[in-house]
Amino acid sequence: MKGLADVHIAIVGLGLMGGSLAGALRGKCRAVVGVARRAETIETALARGLIDRGTTELASGVHEAHMVVLATPVRVILHLLSEIGPLLLKECLLMDLGSTKAQIVAEMARLPGHVQPLGGHPMCGKVVSGIVAADPTLYRGHAFVLTPLSRTSEAALTLGCALVEAVGARPLVLDPDRHDRLAATISHLPYLLECALVGTAEERASSDPMVWEVAASGFRDTSRLAASDVIMMLDILLTNREAVLEALSTCEAQLRDLAHLVEAGDEEGLRTMLTAARERRRGLFT
Amino acid sequence: MKGLADVHIAIVGLGLMGGSLAGALRGKCRAVVGVARRAETIETALARGLIDRGTTELASGVHEAHMVVLATPVRVILHLLSEIGPLLLKECLLMDLGSTKAQIVAEMARLPGHVQPLGGHPMCGKVVSGIVAADPTLYRGHAFVLTPLSRTSEAALTLGCALVEAVGARPLVLDPDRHDRLAATISHLPYLLECALVGTAEERASSDPMVWEVAASGFRDTSRLAASDVIMMLDILLTNREAVLEALSTCEAQLRDLAHLVEAGDEEGLRTMLTAARERRRGLFT
Repeated sequence: MKGLADVHIAIVGLGLMGGSLAGALRGKCRAVVGVARRAETIETALARGLIDRGTTELASGVHEAHMVVLATPVRVILHLLSEIGPLLLKECLLMDLGSTKAQIVAEMARLPGHVQPLGGHPMCGKVVSGIVAADPTLYRGHAFVLTPLSRTSEAALTLGCALVEAVGARPLVLDPDRHDRLAATISHLPYLLECALVGTAEERASSDPMVWEVAASGFRDTSRLAASDVIMMLDILLTNREAVLEALSTCEAQLRDLAHLVEAGDEEGLRTMLTAARERRRGLFT
Repeated sequence: MKGLADVHIAIVGLGLMGGSLAGALRGKCRAVVGVARRAETIETALARGLIDRGTTELASGVHEAHMVVLATPVRVILHLLSEIGPLLLKECLLMDLGSTKAQIVAEMARLPGHVQPLGGHPMCGKVVSGIVAADPTLYRGHAFVLTPLSRTSEAALTLGCALVEAVGARPLVLDPDRHDRLAATISHLPYLLECALVGTAEERASSDPMVWEVAASGFRDTSRLAASDVIMMLDILLTNREAVLEALSTCEAQLRDLAHLVEAGDEEGLRTMLTAARERRRGLFT
């Protein structure tokens, strides 16, 4: 298998994640080809210097590629995996950037034997979406999970790690189920909490519209994810149901504990829980 | 009652909120006097140009003041209200910046008749606390709730509004119970959700410490408030129990609805809830 500098890469899906990946890889590989559904997206990616060339035809976009990265919502990835195999070169490394991994890796296992599959999920993003939000520095400093299959060769995994490092991220090899449980806790749960917060404010607003007048910076920060792309989030929630429900259930128990302490006026109990959360949060980010 | 330019103001408590208020008012009033427990805080406030002078003695700090602002955690405000009356000039405007209002306004009603009480709560803040975090621009562009009592004179309310406008905020006159229900929804609930999120991640981490490695920007933004000052938050929760429990209960119902839709794989139902949250959030902040 070739080194990163010699490979021809095709990126399927030029939204925030795919467009940013293309821009971060351009100049570090032999060619970066973008594949998008709409010609306008290709034009924007070319105008912004994110790709070497682009096409709206999947087959022509990937037929010369040594490496293909699927950068669409999860269920589109699942569909692409079911049909892309015959279009790919022998030993082509087929990666994805999907936010959940177990179903994708299960589908990857069904790819024809000449393809080298490797699941991937960069632990970064923005609430804004689309090629216009693409930023080649998006991946820098973040963890980038890789979920190899038992059939994935050592050389394919090495090339995947080289891609991750080329965009400034840290490769983190994980089992797909483990990834999905972790992602449910640190990514899918925060999204649902923020949707529930906005829904709660909406209920309050139905009797007192002043709620939106007084919404301050705390509310702004705790509702940012609620503006996420709905198609992307539906795919995530519906392909990670078990882990999402487990995280929700743990969190509901935490909220019930907090409610009981408030109701009882248990100052010491509350202080213990709030201090633990504060110490942990302060230790994580500065 | 004098205009703002002619008044001598004392600010009791020189943390983030009091120190920022002092800095925003200095030069716009005859004098800004800071009162703090520790001499070191006074020295910092003087060195940073936030106050004209300072003292650690409550009585000497407020005895010449035409206006006194209590800027401590809520339960310290409640204690100060029980003893400050006899120290104040006739017709002194006594305001506070406490994050909950019903208990404070009830205590204000017991002040001696020569004092003009006015509840206040600026809808802004930062997670960092203390005089070192003080910022005279903190109030700019934010709502600043005022909760007058039936005994509060028109002139006292006018002076309170002048203070709010002088620091760049918008006065918003509300009933204290209404303020507390609104604040429970848009401020106290987000804090509890973030503590519950950190607690959930902590439980996940007890079986898989990798959780902290993969925590990304979404988790960072949805846990920022969990680092808030615990003393301040305990006072808020314990003086606004009923409204906090009501907001928690509404939010738990929202979370259960989301969990049921995920469990049932009800794509249309989920899409409806997530789209409503997205549209609302996008309309609120850009």
